[in-house]
Amino acid sequence: MNRGQLLYEGKAKSVYLSDTPDELIVAFRDDITAFDGQKKDSLAGKGGYNARISAFFFTYLEEKGIPTHFMGMIDDHTMAVKRLNMIPLEVIVRNRAAGSIVRRYPFREGQTFDTPLIVMDYKDDSRHDPMINDDIIIALGLLSRDEIQHVRDLALAVNRHLKELFRARGLDLVDFKIEFGRFGDTILLGDEISMDSMRLWDVKTGASLDKDVYRYDKGDVLSAYAKVVDMMIPKEFGGVQ
Amino acid sequence: MNRGQLLYEGKAKSVYLSDTPDELIVAFRDDITAFDGQKKDSLAGKGGYNARISAFFFTYLEEKGIPTHFMGMIDDHTMAVKRLNMIPLEVIVRNRAAGSIVRRYPFREGQTFDTPLIVMDYKDDSRHDPMINDDIIIALGLLSRDEIQHVRDLALAVNRHLKELFRARGLDLVDFKIEFGRFGDTILLGDEISMDSMRLWDVKTGASLDKDVYRYDKGDVLSAYAKVVDMMIPKEFGGVQ
Repeated sequence: MNRGQLLYEGKAKSVYLSDTPDELIVAFRDDITAFDGQKKDSLAGKGGYNARISAFFFTYLEEKGIPTHFMGMIDDHTMAVKRLNMIPLEVIVRNRAAGSIVRRYPFREGQTFDTPLIVMDYKDDSRHDPMINDDIIIALGLLSRDEIQHVRDLALAVNRHLKELFRARGLDLVDFKIEFGRFGDTILLGDEISMDSMRLWDVKTGASLDKDVYRYDKGDVLSAYAKVVDMMIPKEFGGVQ
Repeated sequence: MNRGQLLYEGKAKSVYLSDTPDELIVAFRDDITAFDGQKKDSLAGKGGYNARISAFFFTYLEEKGIPTHFMGMIDDHTMAVKRLNMIPLEVIVRNRAAGSIVRRYPFREGQTFDTPLIVMDYKDDSRHDPMINDDIIIALGLLSRDEIQHVRDLALAVNRHLKELFRARGLDLVDFKIEFGRFGDTILLGDEISMDSMRLWDVKTGASLDKDVYRYDKGDVLSAYAKVVDMMIPKEFGGVQ
């Protein structure tokens, strides 16, 4: 599959056209950003870690019956995906309180939610991704009420599967952000699932193994990402095809 | 009914204990504030306008079957109410896009929503009343999922009745904010319903007849409030009992 014209340049990924109209090529770059783009760096190897773990999770979730855009790896930091019509929502699932939700509401950092909590943000950099609710999502024509329920169900299913997978390796999935898109009549899980878009705490030590290491200068973020890849991806799962 | 100890001092109202444990006395002051308290004035008579129109709306809504905290007027700017355990939510109903929703999301100022849209904010001055969603409301223990639906139904019923009432007088109810509280096992409409907490546009001229006159220096806010009271309250509705 040949890389075509650059279609879209995100904060950490570049998306290209391919030979096939229904398929795109996603290159995970080594850029890392935080705080709405105010903090910015390039860390050699970071793109590869996120690409490989995303590929692993997409494959795992497909096996569990969750439809994703993932088609396969092209090289260590590049994947082929179905071309989605992205829904501009960040779907955030929280198992414990951390980050913005603790600043905005009276939750205790680290407190466990009895049932996982979903927050959706409207994806618009110029508006700083404001939080959104169901009525506004419908008024903007982003999703119908039934589709919101479907997206919620998918997000909670992703959470159940990932949480279990991490737990078995001694990691606690605190929260994560996913995005969805339309492919014909179906809604597929798109974007990425990586250490850039989740909070992962070591069950024993409580240490962060995610972008918080970078955000709050908690240590070497590359080692943290490498550790997660090492812990999660079985040796037999290639990553390069 | 005698005014007891001051219980709570809001931005524009003072709440006092009464002779009866289940009842409170609410004094509407002449203070007016905007932009999270950054703009502040005192306008003689303003408290009376808001008290009288609130009393009128509460009475009207009770007749329509919506339970409220309102018991009666004590004087022109003071009312007796049932003592509620307030739910710290601002329930905002929008018929058209105006104000914060236009700044936060890609709506056109003045555009009509096909179905009225509800947004809820978590009432906490120190946090600047952040927007909230159903999952967070439940996680904070503010309302159950069924109670959220009940509050939504009440808010939409209030909207239907007020909208009709205003429309008959040539006024367009753009949006409004209401608050609810618990009284024993029931949820009652509390707080106030006044020009401080709604947007009202003259159907013919589009002129604001609400706090936006004060917020954006559109003219004499006292005259605007007086005009609404005059247009809405029938001469036979006393206001003082």
